[in-house]
Amino acid sequence: MVAVAILAAGRGTRMKSSLPKVLHPLGGRSIVEQVLQSLHKISPTRCLVIIGYQAEQVKASLTEVASKLTIPLEFVEQTEQLGTGHAIQQVIPYLEDFTDDLLVLNGDVPLLRPETLQDLLQTHKERQNAATILTAQLPNPQGYGRVFCDEHNIVQQIVEDRDCSTAQKQNCRINAGVYCFRWSDLAEVLPRLQPNNTQKEYYLTDTVNFLEPVMAVDVEDYQEILGINDRQQLATAYSILQARIKSQWMAAGVTLIDPASITIDDTVQIEPDVIIEPQTHLRGQTVIQSGCRIGPGSLVENSCIAENVSVLYSVVTDSSVAANTRIGPYAHLRGHAVVGAGCKIGNFVELKNSQLGDRTNVAHLSYLGDATLGTQVNVGAGTITANYDGVQKHPTKIGDRSKTGANSVLVAPLTIGNDVTIAAGSAVTEDAPDNCLVIGRARQVIKPGWRLKGRDQEL
Amino acid sequence: MVAVAILAAGRGTRMKSSLPKVLHPLGGRSIVEQVLQSLHKISPTRCLVIIGYQAEQVKASLTEVASKLTIPLEFVEQTEQLGTGHAIQQVIPYLEDFTDDLLVLNGDVPLLRPETLQDLLQTHKERQNAATILTAQLPNPQGYGRVFCDEHNIVQQIVEDRDCSTAQKQNCRINAGVYCFRWSDLAEVLPRLQPNNTQKEYYLTDTVNFLEPVMAVDVEDYQEILGINDRQQLATAYSILQARIKSQWMAAGVTLIDPASITIDDTVQIEPDVIIEPQTHLRGQTVIQSGCRIGPGSLVENSCIAENVSVLYSVVTDSSVAANTRIGPYAHLRGHAVVGAGCKIGNFVELKNSQLGDRTNVAHLSYLGDATLGTQVNVGAGTITANYDGVQKHPTKIGDRSKTGANSVLVAPLTIGNDVTIAAGSAVTEDAPDNCLVIGRARQVIKPGWRLKGRDQEL
Amino acid sequence: MVAVAILAAGRGTRMKSSLPKVLHPLGGRSIVEQVLQSLHKISPTRCLVIIGYQAEQVKASLTEVASKLTIPLEFVEQTEQLGTGHAIQQVIPYLEDFTDDLLVLNGDVPLLRPETLQDLLQTHKERQNAATILTAQLPNPQGYGRVFCDEHNIVQQIVEDRDCSTAQKQNCRINAGVYCFRWSDLAEVLPRLQPNNTQKEYYLTDTVNFLEPVMAVDVEDYQEILGINDRQQLATAYSILQARIKSQWMAAGVTLIDPASITIDDTVQIEPDVIIEPQTHLRGQTVIQSGCRIGPGSLVENSCIAENVSVLYSVVTDSSVAANTRIGPYAHLRGHAVVGAGCKIGNFVELKNSQLGDRTNVAHLSYLGDATLGTQVNVGAGTITANYDGVQKHPTKIGDRSKTGANSVLVAPLTIGNDVTIAAGSAVTEDAPDNCLVIGRARQVIKPGWRLKGRDQEL
Repeated sequence: MVAVAILAAGRGTRMKSSLPKVLHPLGGRSIVEQVLQSLHKISPTRCLVIIGYQAEQVKASLTEVASKLTIPLEFVEQTEQLGTGHAIQQVIPYLEDFTDDLLVLNGDVPLLRPETLQDLLQTHKERQNAATILTAQLPNPQGYGRVFCDEHNIVQQIVEDRDCSTAQKQNCRINAGVYCFRWSDLAEVLPRLQPNNTQKEYYLTDTVNFLEPVMAVDVEDYQEILGINDRQQLATAYSILQARIKSQWMAAGVTLIDPASITIDDTVQIEPDVIIEPQTHLRGQTVIQSGCRIGPGSLVENSCIAENVSVLYSVVTDSSVAANTRIGPYAHLRGHAVVGAGCKIGNFVELKNSQLGDRTNVAHLSYLGDATLGTQVNVGAGTITANYDGVQKHPTKIGDRSKTGANSVLVAPLTIGNDVTIAAGSAVTEDAPDNCLVIGRARQVIKPGWRLKGRDQEL
Repeated sequence: MVAVAILAAGRGTRMKSSLPKVLHPLGGRSIVEQVLQSLHKISPTRCLVIIGYQAEQVKASLTEVASKLTIPLEFVEQTEQLGTGHAIQQVIPYLEDFTDDLLVLNGDVPLLRPETLQDLLQTHKERQNAATILTAQLPNPQGYGRVFCDEHNIVQQIVEDRDCSTAQKQNCRINAGVYCFRWSDLAEVLPRLQPNNTQKEYYLTDTVNFLEPVMAVDVEDYQEILGINDRQQLATAYSILQARIKSQWMAAGVTLIDPASITIDDTVQIEPDVIIEPQTHLRGQTVIQSGCRIGPGSLVENSCIAENVSVLYSVVTDSSVAANTRIGPYAHLRGHAVVGAGCKIGNFVELKNSQLGDRTNVAHLSYLGDATLGTQVNVGAGTITANYDGVQKHPTKIGDRSKTGANSVLVAPLTIGNDVTIAAGSAVTEDAPDNCLVIGRARQVIKPGWRLKGRDQEL
Repeated sequence: MVAVAILAAGRGTRMKSSLPKVLHPLGGRSIVEQVLQSLHKISPTRCLVIIGYQAEQVKASLTEVASKLTIPLEFVEQTEQLGTGHAIQQVIPYLEDFTDDLLVLNGDVPLLRPETLQDLLQTHKERQNAATILTAQLPNPQGYGRVFCDEHNIVQQIVEDRDCSTAQKQNCRINAGVYCFRWSDLAEVLPRLQPNNTQKEYYLTDTVNFLEPVMAVDVEDYQEILGINDRQQLATAYSILQARIKSQWMAAGVTLIDPASITIDDTVQIEPDVIIEPQTHLRGQTVIQSGCRIGPGSLVENSCIAENVSVLYSVVTDSSVAANTRIGPYAHLRGHAVVGAGCKIGNFVELKNSQLGDRTNVAHLSYLGDATLGTQVNVGAGTITANYDGVQKHPTKIGDRSKTGANSVLVAPLTIGNDVTIAAGSAVTEDAPDNCLVIGRARQVIKPGWRLKGRDQEL
């Protein structure tokens, strides 16, 4: 049993934003949502989020997230921001009967691995520490509070950077601001904190002076403790998260060509022997099956791409594509497009809320909206479904092996049978049965001896 | 009062180019134009550009630039390239009555910050130096002349790299080739220069031996002194400039996702809480207002994008877009397109020299050229303005709340009233009043029992 | 006379792939094909590839490649994978009469420069070594076998990493796994190898103990010896190869803006004063002539782009473009498109297997397939060739100075003469002579007083 307190009350002035810092997006999630994700290995029974700046907005955002996670959230309002110690003091009334450990996290430190928190907690329990704090060995510790320990990692002293002597500054072990406390001990000493510092703030660190034993545990990878205070750090954090995700997929058998130019949300699934070309972005609930080649220059979001599909310079959102289909360049699938196997969706083609059977081709300059096509249909270049009458959308159906002519327009609602041929340039307004030819265009007239001379000749 | 001399006579052989080195583009400017930009804090009263290789081309290019800046340019021809000392000797006739300081810059060293030049000049004046030279502490000083000073930064000796003893080579303080001279002193010693070196060139550095005191001032960031001699250095310089610009915008509250993949000209303005997605390029006189999301994969040039606009995989040049409009993917706005608020400009849509009222949609596969649309117009997929008759361009006007059918063509000049509906597949050649239906298409015919068998059936 | 043996029998488990490791693509070639490329300076008379895992697939892939190179390949099957020594033992029957040197390479070490192999061989011959092994000085030698030499680079001992003492681990000179043997000596000692190690494998390294003298030669750039065992190393190798190629083109006078985002196959030719914009990919047998600007966001493959062409956000494959033509944004040339000089190919235009004369424009939303256009043709927006009748493709011809109207469709086979004007919205099904106007559309009708009210009004 462990409770978690997440400090999420700060404004984050250096973000220069109207959005509270912890709600800034970092990949597919907000910063603080990323912190919640890191809890999944320790399964806290309580999770208190201390909110302050734009409290309602943070609450609304996290409530939506929490419904997807199994973490029961409680919100603790800190109306004045008087320091980390003050923030945790607000938690006291919420944990009156609580007798176990409290893990304190920062809402703006989103890169901690679940394993790191698990290890911290385990050490805390095994050693029966009053407090266990996460520390890091930084190559450049400037600006951080230094942690001084004995040879058993028992903390002797924590000294703020500005109070360090020149000798003390050589110590590269810093306080990561992540703590595990025996709650009964902490609750007792929290009221003793004093704002005896230039900031006039109550520091949670000061509780360490009243507790014992306090142990320090080093994080293996110091990048995990990066806090986000400005947009540069936001970019750095994103880059670290992405490197983790991409290195995991490479280890799993996915080829990334120019990994630095690719982004992959951590919600994406990719099978082995997929090749991701440069400048490709995979987002949301996306699955890419084996043998696919995605990119260059493609965005796939919330979509399922089956085996051996190629997606070249295209955008696919909320759609699914069956095996061996070729997409692009410059195709756009959206709004629950469902494309069959062995299809070709070519350049300047948009599919919206449409279903295509196997081996159906839409190769050039077409828009299919709210359409259902059978198998082996050939959609001619420039074919457009007029699915919107200005008031509402209507469906179009086309049977197997039918063929629409180039530059034809299909006025919905419309049902075209199997083996129908529509002549090029036709406007089709009425249903057509199986096995017929549909023509809806004017007869050609030639005016000989005509030369383009100026505006007299209207075209 | 300060005069500036810019050395811009060299060819730049290692660029392997038909273009003079200093005219190569570096972001939105040429290399030497970038040097001119760095002068804005010192406001020189004279600015002499020493030209030689392809002098006329350099002159023409800079004359155009100078008209936009407040810097009065004079061109000094150096017909033979006999070294930096020889170059400055050419300036003597131009500065006969001049009695103040001369700042000497290289036309191929474009990364100096305005503050660096300001500090150099200020030190020069305050210390009443005969000459003040800019130095840098390089991690790898190989190839550069080393500057030896006493403890007061008074230069004792400058030794070329090839003449350095092994001990002297340990000195990492190098000559950046940027000098400030008391002109009267310099003018006096310039004639004494001798080409006593293997290159048989007159070195400006040698004047230091005749002047006193000569002081050295270190540049804070040694990247500033990068000279461009080849395309690799051009790429490096561009990357440094870009890092500066991007770090400035991040500090100002702009989120850059994957900053390394983004380029931003220094002429661009961005408001806080804009999100720039990967592989996006902002160029020229572009303004992006708060709440916009630009990219991935977009190019915006000389355009104004108002609040909360999204631009996805699109190209926008010389255009403006009002608030809350969505652009893309694969849209192209150009030639002074002006799009209203709350519009949707969708895939495969080109707008050229057209004005759209608020809440007007052009969602798919359309070309609007020289068109003026009212508010709440719905442009059907595949709608095209035939604005060119083969001789000249003509305008199209469409009133409020009108709707063009899919695959319709509007033959300009054409005026369509308010609340007009144009049937799908129509060719519209005559004006239409308010509140009417326009049809310009053939009636559909069905030929039953018809099957596609071969080329007998013409479609 | 030298023979080469390439070890290509391994599976490469850590690639997590159904494809044999050595066949994974690395730029435009497979890994092992890249190894073959590195042989071109030493012209081996024999080249034995030792295959095992998926032997047939490796054989088929290399046989295809070898037909293009002048290297005579022989395949040696190693049915069990019992180590590098065992692999080379399989070669013995193939080289019974062979009396010269054998160079042993790894099929998964693709970055060796031809000069490196040449130097290794030369030293081997000049010094009359029994064996000469390639070594590297690694900043982090962990995991590699260390090579201990006397002051004349004569190898004293090779110690596996796990067998090294702490002192021995300080030696940063490692065995690169590339060997040159006097074949007669090697053939004699190969049978003596014993699998006396934890892997129970026959190590080729052990032959060194029986030969003398064995000399070590350091590779200049240790990146050359990178072996590929997983997808991360594959990405690293690709990045190193790309850096080499790009640095070569920059030295040759090509401007790369943001080089890291650009990829260039080593089969591409680029003239000086070409500018490559970010996120551009040049592949296959592509030639880019002087003055071109390619990108951002473009892919050019197997195509020839003449002087001063611009290609913006476009895909060009298997095509050629003459001088001063502008392509894009969002154009797609493919299937042997041949575009004349001074043309404009604009947005959302696809050209497939079509020829365009000089100064012909296809500016918007068009598809030309199997078409031949003369000079100064103007193809109106939305023009489409209906080249496919559902059974086969047919040609379209358009003479000089003709003009197709917007949204017109040209039903092939079709021949349009010179100076023909086709009215907007026409379906053209019959040939047209010179100097005529072609109209194929219905007359417009206006129904006044009509208002869009709901679905009653079918459009």
